[in-house]
Amino acid sequence: MSMLPDPSSKYRAFAPISLPDRTWPNKVLDKAPIWLSTDLRDGNQSLIEPMDAEKKMRFFKCLVAIGLKEIEVGFPSASQTDFDFVRELIEGGHIPDDVTIQVLTQARDDLIERTFESLKGAKRAIVHYYNACAPSFRRIVFNQDQAGVKAIAVAAGKTIRRLAEAAPETQWSFEYSPEVFSSTETDFAVEVCNAVIEVFDPTPQNPLILNLPATIECCMPNQYADQIEWFGRHIQRRDSVLISVHTHNDRGTGVAASEMAVLAGADRVEGCLFGNGERTGNVCLVTLALNLYTQGVHPGLDFSDIDGVRKVVEECNQLPVHPRHPYVGDLVHTAFSGSHQDAIRKGFAQQDPNGIWEVPYLPIDPADIGRSYEAVIRVNSQSGKGGITYLLEQEYGISLPRRMQIEFSQVVQGETDRLGLEMTAQQIHDLLEREYLQASEPYSLIRHRLQEENGTSAVDVEVQEEGRNHHWRGTGKGPLEALVNALPVKVEIMDYNEHAIGSGTDARAAAYIEIRMDNGRSLHGIGIDENLTTASFRALFSAVNRAQRQSRAKAA
Amino acid sequence: MSMLPDPSSKYRAFAPISLPDRTWPNKVLDKAPIWLSTDLRDGNQSLIEPMDAEKKMRFFKCLVAIGLKEIEVGFPSASQTDFDFVRELIEGGHIPDDVTIQVLTQARDDLIERTFESLKGAKRAIVHYYNACAPSFRRIVFNQDQAGVKAIAVAAGKTIRRLAEAAPETQWSFEYSPEVFSSTETDFAVEVCNAVIEVFDPTPQNPLILNLPATIECCMPNQYADQIEWFGRHIQRRDSVLISVHTHNDRGTGVAASEMAVLAGADRVEGCLFGNGERTGNVCLVTLALNLYTQGVHPGLDFSDIDGVRKVVEECNQLPVHPRHPYVGDLVHTAFSGSHQDAIRKGFAQQDPNGIWEVPYLPIDPADIGRSYEAVIRVNSQSGKGGITYLLEQEYGISLPRRMQIEFSQVVQGETDRLGLEMTAQQIHDLLEREYLQASEPYSLIRHRLQEENGTSAVDVEVQEEGRNHHWRGTGKGPLEALVNALPVKVEIMDYNEHAIGSGTDARAAAYIEIRMDNGRSLHGIGIDENLTTASFRALFSAVNRAQRQSRAKAA
Repeated sequence: MSMLPDPSSKYRAFAPISLPDRTWPNKVLDKAPIWLSTDLRDGNQSLIEPMDAEKKMRFFKCLVAIGLKEIEVGFPSASQTDFDFVRELIEGGHIPDDVTIQVLTQARDDLIERTFESLKGAKRAIVHYYNACAPSFRRIVFNQDQAGVKAIAVAAGKTIRRLAEAAPETQWSFEYSPEVFSSTETDFAVEVCNAVIEVFDPTPQNPLILNLPATIECCMPNQYADQIEWFGRHIQRRDSVLISVHTHNDRGTGVAASEMAVLAGADRVEGCLFGNGERTGNVCLVTLALNLYTQGVHPGLDFSDIDGVRKVVEECNQLPVHPRHPYVGDLVHTAFSGSHQDAIRKGFAQQDPNGIWEVPYLPIDPADIGRSYEAVIRVNSQSGKGGITYLLEQEYGISLPRRMQIEFSQVVQGETDRLGLEMTAQQIHDLLEREYLQASEPYSLIRHRLQEENGTSAVDVEVQEEGRNHHWRGTGKGPLEALVNALPVKVEIMDYNEHAIGSGTDARAAAYIEIRMDNGRSLHGIGIDENLTTASFRALFSAVNRAQRQSRAKAA
Repeated sequence: MSMLPDPSSKYRAFAPISLPDRTWPNKVLDKAPIWLSTDLRDGNQSLIEPMDAEKKMRFFKCLVAIGLKEIEVGFPSASQTDFDFVRELIEGGHIPDDVTIQVLTQARDDLIERTFESLKGAKRAIVHYYNACAPSFRRIVFNQDQAGVKAIAVAAGKTIRRLAEAAPETQWSFEYSPEVFSSTETDFAVEVCNAVIEVFDPTPQNPLILNLPATIECCMPNQYADQIEWFGRHIQRRDSVLISVHTHNDRGTGVAASEMAVLAGADRVEGCLFGNGERTGNVCLVTLALNLYTQGVHPGLDFSDIDGVRKVVEECNQLPVHPRHPYVGDLVHTAFSGSHQDAIRKGFAQQDPNGIWEVPYLPIDPADIGRSYEAVIRVNSQSGKGGITYLLEQEYGISLPRRMQIEFSQVVQGETDRLGLEMTAQQIHDLLEREYLQASEPYSLIRHRLQEENGTSAVDVEVQEEGRNHHWRGTGKGPLEALVNALPVKVEIMDYNEHAIGSGTDARAAAYIEIRMDNGRSLHGIGIDENLTTASFRALFSAVNRAQRQSRAKAA
């Protein structure tokens, strides 16, 4: 029946190593690993629109504020933007004393030299180099045998050590990644890493970082953990080595793989905020950190304003965080089911006197990460329908622009707080009407005349104000500008959107306008009309009237 | 430094059971479990906009087409929509002979009776009932001790058995869930389940399903697997019981938890497509199935048209699938990094003669799931910039509406195929100009006059056609309708959008119009101008001219 081909002739099963005396499953996570963010390198490389210098700096400062002490800032030998950014970090003095930057380079002498150029003058830095070790990469990509791959790792290590010794003003650390570790014969990975250890001669005081990437996630997390435990048992000079893991998420198990690897002896975890990275992304550092947190272990990272962090990341990456992403998604502190809501209500009512968190269905107190209890129970009608934006779109064809959604949700929140009730679609629409569409005081638009010629619009509006009629006239490059110029108050249009409701002859236009008043405040207005111009004029009056009303309320 | 409070006084660590002789880590996944989709119940309950009857039926048919043999279709005692849907499935004959529907009910007699009413006349059905067993739920939500919780499970089981025996025309199966299993004392869960086994007296031929939910994911997947293995060792009449798991994703490890539970003895897995469900969602069945597939094990589910499945799910759930979601995300078969692209190219060039899949960085052959190799390398400039929509938005402030993005991406694709090159932002914008903004033949808009009064718009446009000037006049309820009426060709406006580019006095308007022509074809046009009206007029001319051009090209 199935159309999927028989996979048994096409895909080989992963061959796990044998480790029947594994010890990691008897352990628990009781302290935080060393964290490394690779958002500015591995994350950045996978973006539709790679970050510019300004975004990189913004992201870097966000990472520092969160508490990251090791940050991979780029691949300076591969990208001029990255090179310049590393220079700016160093020359501009942007690196706090307790933060170490890391840069990635391939195992090639010319690229290594360029990498050291980028780091000139740094107080501290980690030089991270790699070459792929897995059989399929050796054969398909590099046409090298095991000895050849190992020789590349050793030779590049020697170049790095030599260049580091020539720049003693920097406190150097070194990281080597046998790329595609989890698809590599584990004993060969140990062999290469042992050879690299000999090159760098690390000490417990200045350990070598050996990073063991699941570059493409190819096995179950327990199998990866077995590899890590086996590696830790067989690597030389274990006390002078930090085992680091770098998991991806191709099988959807990157978080589990990193956690089990830590049980299996990993000292350090590389990843990205909210799991960005090539294909399915790197492991999500936020999830790992808050998983520790909810077990009573401080992760050493600060996500007390998780939405603020998310905003920076979304704006820099230009990729959304999914509404169901652990801890941060829009929907994860929300209960839709009535029985869940009931249990949560009881949990909040009977909080433990010793302050132990035990509210059903909420694995973390949303307040700890800057989310509010108000967000937990949505504006929901009893029928299970809900979601302001959705309701308006589904039932009334009204698509609020995003900033307006936020403004209006506060209006709705105020109303539900006042009523103490969930609201129906009808009630929400009534509120929208009252708040925006019927905002006809002090200025009520009676009618307009518009004349356009040669790109210039001349508008004549008849307006009622406290029972008296006025005519206001203005001209401008378009009807809205003409109307703005006709108004007796100073208004700046920040944004507008319009869309059709329905189509054909029954269509109406919905217009949304955001204005900024003299006092810097932004406010929205809506207009709906069969006539496009009228809709946009109504929207402007709606916004202006709301602004007037609010400033009068404030004055009173 | 950190603002996150010290969690050690607020959160209790999970207390794992001791199972040093666990056997599951030595096993591998070598066959598919029994799958149950709970999209229409657990998934549906968590939607902003729950599905209506039409969407439920569409989703059900999609699940059947994928190959699901057990489908939880609703909670009929809690929802009239669900009740009616179950009736429609049965009475309408929509359930194939090899598919069994399942329904959920709470452990209350009145709800159980209503549940059986909904199932009247079904050939086969699974009645699934539950009550929460965890200590915090017993104390906070139900105010019950262990004996009370167990008595509820037993009493409800007896009611279910009695009602089933009274309806012998249906072939019944039964499922019991000790809700919040993973937070429950495992020995108590076994005790309750053993009592339930005695009620139903299952046989190897008609086993009882015992479903062990991680209702809120509270522990590591290996700890959950230990619970499952322990449970399997201690439950009575193991050969007459199917152990089912139902994992959520609060810690981001739902996939690993289900997989390890299967190693630990679970026979059956419940979940949702693409991981929908309350909060962080249920485990993703698609990921689980394709994880098996890439290990050479046929999952028994068909995702050979994964985008088709995704479309149904997104439209029914009104929630997006994340661009990095395993196997299906927009970006997961895409390589941005040059070295990745190079390795993939080599992998495709040197495919194994025995057909074994070994292309670097691609854990699955995209073709197996209906994705194409063309999708692997995006329209990307060498500088790493890319993404048509993003480029236009970032560099030019142009936000194409979604349907227009699709239309324009085909135009770009045609151009890159022709040039054999990746395109820069500038080239893409030039193409947009050429295709839309400069579409001025046969009709070139010279100028317009607009008069509006009493909501009626009168438009007079001066148009050049093959060197000759015309005046066309029309009236309508708005300027666009007036212009449509002025045109010598029949046009229906399907959609329009406008937005500002920039703000203040420098702002320009971008207008997007989708028209439908006489022949049913839809086409887009764009206009940009300082004047809002002019922009929308230009957009309409752009669309009309493109349509004329295409029909002439076809005629020629």
